[in-house]
Amino acid sequence: MSSDRPTRPDPTTIDDLPTPALVVEKSIFESNLAAMDAVRPGTELRPHVKAFKSTALAARLAADGHTGFCCATPREVEGLVAAGLGHDVLLANESLDLARLGVLVADDSVEANITAAVDSDSTVDAVISSGIRSVLIDVEVGLPRCGCDSTDAGRLADRARSAGLEVRGVMGYEGHLMMVEDRAERIERVGAAMEQLVAAAGDVGGDIVSAGGTGTFDTNTWCTEIQAGSYTLLDSDYAKLDLPFQVALNVLGTVISISPKGWIIADTGLKSMAMDHGNPSWDGGDVFFLSDEHATLLPPDFENWSVGDRVRLQPAHVDPTIAKHECMWVVDGDDIVDRWEVDLRHW
Amino acid sequence: MSSDRPTRPDPTTIDDLPTPALVVEKSIFESNLAAMDAVRPGTELRPHVKAFKSTALAARLAADGHTGFCCATPREVEGLVAAGLGHDVLLANESLDLARLGVLVADDSVEANITAAVDSDSTVDAVISSGIRSVLIDVEVGLPRCGCDSTDAGRLADRARSAGLEVRGVMGYEGHLMMVEDRAERIERVGAAMEQLVAAAGDVGGDIVSAGGTGTFDTNTWCTEIQAGSYTLLDSDYAKLDLPFQVALNVLGTVISISPKGWIIADTGLKSMAMDHGNPSWDGGDVFFLSDEHATLLPPDFENWSVGDRVRLQPAHVDPTIAKHECMWVVDGDDIVDRWEVDLRHW
Repeated sequence: MSSDRPTRPDPTTIDDLPTPALVVEKSIFESNLAAMDAVRPGTELRPHVKAFKSTALAARLAADGHTGFCCATPREVEGLVAAGLGHDVLLANESLDLARLGVLVADDSVEANITAAVDSDSTVDAVISSGIRSVLIDVEVGLPRCGCDSTDAGRLADRARSAGLEVRGVMGYEGHLMMVEDRAERIERVGAAMEQLVAAAGDVGGDIVSAGGTGTFDTNTWCTEIQAGSYTLLDSDYAKLDLPFQVALNVLGTVISISPKGWIIADTGLKSMAMDHGNPSWDGGDVFFLSDEHATLLPPDFENWSVGDRVRLQPAHVDPTIAKHECMWVVDGDDIVDRWEVDLRHW
Repeated sequence: MSSDRPTRPDPTTIDDLPTPALVVEKSIFESNLAAMDAVRPGTELRPHVKAFKSTALAARLAADGHTGFCCATPREVEGLVAAGLGHDVLLANESLDLARLGVLVADDSVEANITAAVDSDSTVDAVISSGIRSVLIDVEVGLPRCGCDSTDAGRLADRARSAGLEVRGVMGYEGHLMMVEDRAERIERVGAAMEQLVAAAGDVGGDIVSAGGTGTFDTNTWCTEIQAGSYTLLDSDYAKLDLPFQVALNVLGTVISISPKGWIIADTGLKSMAMDHGNPSWDGGDVFFLSDEHATLLPPDFENWSVGDRVRLQPAHVDPTIAKHECMWVVDGDDIVDRWEVDLRHW
């Protein structure tokens, strides 16, 4: 894909970066990791790679003892295994495209301990025929998405075990509660959701009760491991909550046009930034609107801006923002200290 | 990037496709092209590759005589030139990252006739120092984005010519009028916008008045060429207008979970589909909501659905949807007849 591009020297400072570009503030990223480790050390956290889709970032977390990972797609599982991070990988999603992962399980030359989520006869059967040997029973706990009824979990576990699969426990994602702003209300509602999951865990057996996310990393005290990934880089939506994490990820842009009518245009359009949680935030003024390759910004001091100036916008949703980019640039002040490939994209 | 993926056989029918996947209905695509050609033959249309980001699709349009192209990013220009489609390429956007394109202009081994849009002293100067030799003066015609004031266009043209640049004319994008539903109102408002552009063209000189898009391809009768790309594949937003184009692009998904509470889950999440124009459309029922890798759908006959069934969703905005994918699969009925790489992504 890059063979038709002229070679350019590696950027050494943020001023060298072509834009739009994803920029990670190293000190904030490290602070976010420390805040999580203080509450969820080692395998009490199962980092969700869907948030950042980068084996480089995953390897950093594994170095801190978070050696089990969580994936949303078969592609993410394949990439982790290829990067030597296949010690304990959970595909926390139902899939019928599992034969490609069974090939990895059968390959003695790679470490590929893969567990798949199942919530129906069909998905149990897909795991059986794939060659994957371990499952978690996925239980619906209030989010209208995947997961079996909690009363059906034991039956599915029996079906899996009778075919020789290891049933490691249950998972359930209380995604509808991630953004509950009041902490007391969050704790109460997470508790009600987890009551169903714990009941199912009793029927299912196994050691694992996997749940949660960045928004409930400390309030979900019912699970044995938390599935969280957004906390590493955060976004302006999660930043509204009372969490000990800060936004480490920005989309860097260049001002390409200034209107005497009061707006400036940066090249940070919606092809560089997810819009499903709304506009990004900007500390220089209001964000008017984004189009494919443009952000129309309203700085109160627009007459002080020049074409060529840089801006940094904070996306409202980190996961799909990162999925639009080939890499993230890690910076310490203005210096670029690392480049993380976003190598787990697509399906 | 693909070296760590197991090799799989090429899909021959739609049933073989891993999901989510972009699917193009060949007959509808061809019908859209014919409808455009009837109104804007040859170089009266300058196809905007930002909509589809594929040199394979661009080559199909060039074969019909649309040999001039329009780009939103330097990367798109580079890709067209590398694919032998550099006969007349307009970067219809201001940029300070132009030296990489000047290298192509100076390279006698490739055809790279590149024209850049400018709207300020700074962007004129960036073209001069890049080695690009031609410009259009970009005029703001009502959309709060790029473009100089129409009264400043002549002065910018003089600045460019005095430095030896060829000034080929003007461009102006009436993007705020693309979705005006009433045709008579659209014609009237486009006329008012184009009045400014035509006045600027008189001050600037040159042969080109470049404007418009899919929504105004037949109502903008003031320009010499239309910049349109979405018409090739369309989306559910443009489908609301009285245009002779139909939706040719779907996101194909697989049902992975069914709830007895009445919803089904497909693997067509928002990482496979742009959300800036809202939810996709689905002919099987209501679309409840999308999350990263899931679509929660509400078919009235949900009890008739099975895990493994396929769904096709129509995205609301085609351009950023395509930019999320590596390729498009062209189908004739259930048969796959072509694969178009989305090779103009990123910046």
